[in-house]
Amino acid sequence: MSNNPSFVLKAVEQTVFEERPIPQIAGDQVLIQVKKTGICGSDVHYLVHGRIGDFVVNDPMVLGHESSGIVAKVGPNVKHLKVGDRVAVEPGASCRSCEPCKAGKYNLCEDMVFAATPPYDGTLTRFYRVPGDLAYPLPDGVSLEDGAMMEPLAVGVHSVSNLGGFRAQQSIAIFGCGPVGLLCMAVAKALGAKRIIAVDIVPARLEFAKEYAATDSYLPIPANEGESKVDYSKRNADAMKEQLGIQDRGLNSIDLVIDASGAEVSIQTAFYVVKTGGTYVQVGMGNPNVTISVGQLMVKELTYKGSFRYGPGDYPLAISLVAQGKINLKPLVTHRFPFDDAITAFKATRAGKSEDGKGVIKAIISGPDVAITEN
Amino acid sequence: MSNNPSFVLKAVEQTVFEERPIPQIAGDQVLIQVKKTGICGSDVHYLVHGRIGDFVVNDPMVLGHESSGIVAKVGPNVKHLKVGDRVAVEPGASCRSCEPCKAGKYNLCEDMVFAATPPYDGTLTRFYRVPGDLAYPLPDGVSLEDGAMMEPLAVGVHSVSNLGGFRAQQSIAIFGCGPVGLLCMAVAKALGAKRIIAVDIVPARLEFAKEYAATDSYLPIPANEGESKVDYSKRNADAMKEQLGIQDRGLNSIDLVIDASGAEVSIQTAFYVVKTGGTYVQVGMGNPNVTISVGQLMVKELTYKGSFRYGPGDYPLAISLVAQGKINLKPLVTHRFPFDDAITAFKATRAGKSEDGKGVIKAIISGPDVAITEN
Amino acid sequence: MSNNPSFVLKAVEQTVFEERPIPQIAGDQVLIQVKKTGICGSDVHYLVHGRIGDFVVNDPMVLGHESSGIVAKVGPNVKHLKVGDRVAVEPGASCRSCEPCKAGKYNLCEDMVFAATPPYDGTLTRFYRVPGDLAYPLPDGVSLEDGAMMEPLAVGVHSVSNLGGFRAQQSIAIFGCGPVGLLCMAVAKALGAKRIIAVDIVPARLEFAKEYAATDSYLPIPANEGESKVDYSKRNADAMKEQLGIQDRGLNSIDLVIDASGAEVSIQTAFYVVKTGGTYVQVGMGNPNVTISVGQLMVKELTYKGSFRYGPGDYPLAISLVAQGKINLKPLVTHRFPFDDAITAFKATRAGKSEDGKGVIKAIISGPDVAITEN
Amino acid sequence: MSNNPSFVLKAVEQTVFEERPIPQIAGDQVLIQVKKTGICGSDVHYLVHGRIGDFVVNDPMVLGHESSGIVAKVGPNVKHLKVGDRVAVEPGASCRSCEPCKAGKYNLCEDMVFAATPPYDGTLTRFYRVPGDLAYPLPDGVSLEDGAMMEPLAVGVHSVSNLGGFRAQQSIAIFGCGPVGLLCMAVAKALGAKRIIAVDIVPARLEFAKEYAATDSYLPIPANEGESKVDYSKRNADAMKEQLGIQDRGLNSIDLVIDASGAEVSIQTAFYVVKTGGTYVQVGMGNPNVTISVGQLMVKELTYKGSFRYGPGDYPLAISLVAQGKINLKPLVTHRFPFDDAITAFKATRAGKSEDGKGVIKAIISGPDVAITEN
Repeated sequence: MSNNPSFVLKAVEQTVFEERPIPQIAGDQVLIQVKKTGICGSDVHYLVHGRIGDFVVNDPMVLGHESSGIVAKVGPNVKHLKVGDRVAVEPGASCRSCEPCKAGKYNLCEDMVFAATPPYDGTLTRFYRVPGDLAYPLPDGVSLEDGAMMEPLAVGVHSVSNLGGFRAQQSIAIFGCGPVGLLCMAVAKALGAKRIIAVDIVPARLEFAKEYAATDSYLPIPANEGESKVDYSKRNADAMKEQLGIQDRGLNSIDLVIDASGAEVSIQTAFYVVKTGGTYVQVGMGNPNVTISVGQLMVKELTYKGSFRYGPGDYPLAISLVAQGKINLKPLVTHRFPFDDAITAFKATRAGKSEDGKGVIKAIISGPDVAITEN
Repeated sequence: MSNNPSFVLKAVEQTVFEERPIPQIAGDQVLIQVKKTGICGSDVHYLVHGRIGDFVVNDPMVLGHESSGIVAKVGPNVKHLKVGDRVAVEPGASCRSCEPCKAGKYNLCEDMVFAATPPYDGTLTRFYRVPGDLAYPLPDGVSLEDGAMMEPLAVGVHSVSNLGGFRAQQSIAIFGCGPVGLLCMAVAKALGAKRIIAVDIVPARLEFAKEYAATDSYLPIPANEGESKVDYSKRNADAMKEQLGIQDRGLNSIDLVIDASGAEVSIQTAFYVVKTGGTYVQVGMGNPNVTISVGQLMVKELTYKGSFRYGPGDYPLAISLVAQGKINLKPLVTHRFPFDDAITAFKATRAGKSEDGKGVIKAIISGPDVAITEN
Repeated sequence: MSNNPSFVLKAVEQTVFEERPIPQIAGDQVLIQVKKTGICGSDVHYLVHGRIGDFVVNDPMVLGHESSGIVAKVGPNVKHLKVGDRVAVEPGASCRSCEPCKAGKYNLCEDMVFAATPPYDGTLTRFYRVPGDLAYPLPDGVSLEDGAMMEPLAVGVHSVSNLGGFRAQQSIAIFGCGPVGLLCMAVAKALGAKRIIAVDIVPARLEFAKEYAATDSYLPIPANEGESKVDYSKRNADAMKEQLGIQDRGLNSIDLVIDASGAEVSIQTAFYVVKTGGTYVQVGMGNPNVTISVGQLMVKELTYKGSFRYGPGDYPLAISLVAQGKINLKPLVTHRFPFDDAITAFKATRAGKSEDGKGVIKAIISGPDVAITEN
Repeated sequence: MSNNPSFVLKAVEQTVFEERPIPQIAGDQVLIQVKKTGICGSDVHYLVHGRIGDFVVNDPMVLGHESSGIVAKVGPNVKHLKVGDRVAVEPGASCRSCEPCKAGKYNLCEDMVFAATPPYDGTLTRFYRVPGDLAYPLPDGVSLEDGAMMEPLAVGVHSVSNLGGFRAQQSIAIFGCGPVGLLCMAVAKALGAKRIIAVDIVPARLEFAKEYAATDSYLPIPANEGESKVDYSKRNADAMKEQLGIQDRGLNSIDLVIDASGAEVSIQTAFYVVKTGGTYVQVGMGNPNVTISVGQLMVKELTYKGSFRYGPGDYPLAISLVAQGKINLKPLVTHRFPFDDAITAFKATRAGKSEDGKGVIKAIISGPDVAITEN
């Protein structure tokens, strides 16, 4: 049977709706009828460039990996789910046998099967198959749209709580006010941050960040003509510290910096802003090669960590924080599309705004509920 | 009384022998008659450049900070020492009241009084004063020269054991075979390393490293003409992994990388060599701004740490490893000078070899025992 | 000058008001005019028994250690305080030189000078001297009574956050609803607990706990006649788990147990309640020898930690949580006495209620402002 | 086909040799021809008592879980093994989906399938089936007998390295010189211990311990008539500390205590011996309810941990330490039996000595190679 409409990337800038076979499930798997899927920058990146780093789209691939849905079929070994349950779907199935998998770092598994990371198909499809433990029941009061947002929220949980070790009454600065940056702020707020500083070059994004979760914001100063990035970043950091009363140690220092921008000057600036002995987590991807201040790294004895996806406990904490009302995901969903308008959703995400000029934070695609309208 | 001959940096490239007053000690301090002092790259750097980063020599400053000696006077509150004891001297006295001091990271103290870091005088003097707990008795069988070597060895202990969390049966790669790199290898060996890979661009240094502590060595391939550092580093890492059978995960992977070179291509190469989920400690100082692969940092979820001096437990572990015979410091002391030849010692360290062409690993200056011969 | 009225324990059950000399301060010390002092169970214990474990009152000793006050004099090396500042006083001055002090565990210092722990005088006095860094300025909105409560609150912070590693969305069970138990609940709530279970044998205390901070409460079942403590505790734990839906693993399990009762059956019960792989912190002191289930410790691979006073960061976090409004200390201060009624305050704390029958959680003694009224 | 002779526990004190079917393997499993199996105290305990705690033998169960063998069949998804490989077998297969499994603590899995833990059959059989990743290839120079010893050695690695966090130059005291105690000493030695103190009530066992791995030994003093265990233990600890120069803090203190005896007085004594701020790991099972000094736990702020089996990285570290020659397992194998003498092997282990009076440390059963001789 192949009643399984899917949104497929054929080649760079070429997508198509296709009927795919409905997957068979094994004893420890479940079949999910996908209901909501958020569009991520990486989906757009594959569409536009056909690759991200070493991951290259050589064969047609279903897009999408931020999804929630309804359980349609349950393998006999799966005990915690039944048909009809509303679930968030964690889109990466690891091998469970390798050293990182066993050591509590399954996100570093070499044999990860991750939705919409080539060569594996994604979740913009009617029926998607996952191991039972990767389908997390949504508590009452947590919507299917919230469920689709658990994926980027888990990225924030992983960066802020797991890697950043962020704790109540600490202070954090977050560079970049896109979806991941905003979700990192939401996590920091939910964990009891004393101070959350949002940094972005777009004033409207800073305003939104402050309404949403930040306690402070910083708009970078302009660079001087001919000034090197390194010099500018140092000067920018000084201005930021002066403006916000940030010190290198003690109660007015920044315990944790998250870079969710990927921009070189953000990364450079952050090294001067984080406190002596502090932690810096890199979650935004930009230019893969960036000049940093090894001098600051050493003299302040910093810890600089890369963040990759999410691991044990990140989805459960994300869901729990939303269920307890400590994080509100609704303000971030700015655009909604039916399945057969998937292309429009991608277009808007790519442009950063829809045709009516409204800025996109997160666009969510519904369904497909039965079949593709016409295609 | 001022019978305290000292070797003083007056200005860039200007040194002089001076009589300084013998320090008065407070109740919790001891007076050390300095017997052996090693010359460190940072001493030379102050001599040549008059500054290291933000630390600027504005006033005359006694040089030297790697010292051992004999206890000459004991404050009434110091219980573990008596006059005549042979001790290694930890050259940094922290404030003991600030947040890092109390939290077990005294090396990050803002008010550190560190020998030969401006504006504080160093240990190339007859009598040096320290808090009692920074004078560590040398066990029988540990010489005063060994005692002077405890300072750079503590740097190795801090980087490999404390920050690197290195444990028995792990594998390590160390870039740079100068004194600190060699001492990091010695620490790794003493802690039970399975594999210790030395990397350097000078074949003779690699040979020495293998005789001393390394299990393997790697001589970087030549760069192609016009090749960018970034491209070269990736190619160099591939060659190194191929040559030595290094993998990204599992038993043949590198758990910890130490960069003790400060060279940009070393730093870049190392990001490709360290295992997925691994740790990278930067202890070598070079150009303060370096281009790194943020892509590798993220995809492999690395932890990149700066190392700054040493902290709680580092001196005791260093001394213990030497006392138990797990580290032999003697092969590293290649040159010895009397106090009034201090200038020659600096010249040799700066050149990397003495006038007879013999390569310098560590030059040690004795005394002064009574007064400066003629000056 | 000796205008320094003090409340002195002369011998078991014998107290007296005495004029003591006003302490001289050293350069790094401050003199505090004590304004508010809470009475602790340990103060009462010294009054009644003259000792706690190996700490024996051989000479007259000023009582009291939970204090706040006004800075009356500032040593020249203290930069963060000025005369007139309102401060909370951390009552233990460690040596700052020993291995635990340097390693970030100053509460384990062998040479600790701790207020009202023999042979050191306490804070029920007009002027008390402390190192400057142990006087913490109280932010606006934090009262001097709050300041006196920071001492037991720091005990809660140390147990729950520092030793227990408690994090947002975790669940905790706290045995014993005295001041320390209640403050542990307050800390857990402030840190974002999902579930806080209060356990006590007095229903009124459970009611108060639920009003104050707990989400759930449990009143132990009665023991059967002739039943051993061990058997009863197992049965009691089963009843508690049944009643509250507690499981051994997963979302409905108890991540952390705090015993703030010191009662043997509480300690025993807790081993069955905490989750597999969970943590159990002992902060309540009772019988020093207690029968525990080593079987549970092993099969569930538990971590059982003793808690002793507080260490780096505990006072700052306590003050910050109160200043941000996340903890309200006011409901815990049930009784207030002037300095010359100190004996009545002790009597009420000892009885657990004042003469009017009102239950004591915390009694606070003011002043003395000038001199003892008549004595 | 049922050519699979097995040694089966039918009921308390009743064993029988049976032909069992040869297991079918799934794609990620391997079939092992068992070559060597060590007898463990728990095997004997099931034989004698039919249960250990809540684990009850209700149905016939094959005994044995410390095994090595030859790979006889390889599932198509297993890449690192081929038929004929010599392997050590980790005898517990966890579910890989639950929270502890994912978080890096698979030994705490609720659905663990563990050899010879009811209701699961053990390894005293010709062919045993395991997931491929639980069969670890033995390096050259590591014998099949060594391979069978990896199971108890992994217990030692888990207790000393993983839970105890033991590091080079630390000091350890180990109570109990049975196989697990001796293997803990071997691990401590291999990790670079400064001091290893063996404690046992049998002088011959102490002598063996010192020959094998310990640096010091302690024979407990006799108890006085009528003396309580608690009083005796305190006195015993004082004698031990006096005799061996053990202090509560600093270089002559005991960083880690392992109790591998399960005896109440050992457990009690150890609380007084471990250093302030130290760690105590319980690996020996005895009476499940034991009276401990909660007073010591608190005043010294100890961490007391239960140890249960082994987890991620324990088998690989065990094998690596043996392969590198840092642990010699051969002296511990005191008795060897053919498969059809299994009953004699159990009898000797139970008695602690064979019929010729020779003390048993570890008895190993070979095979069966083809079929049971006659039975």
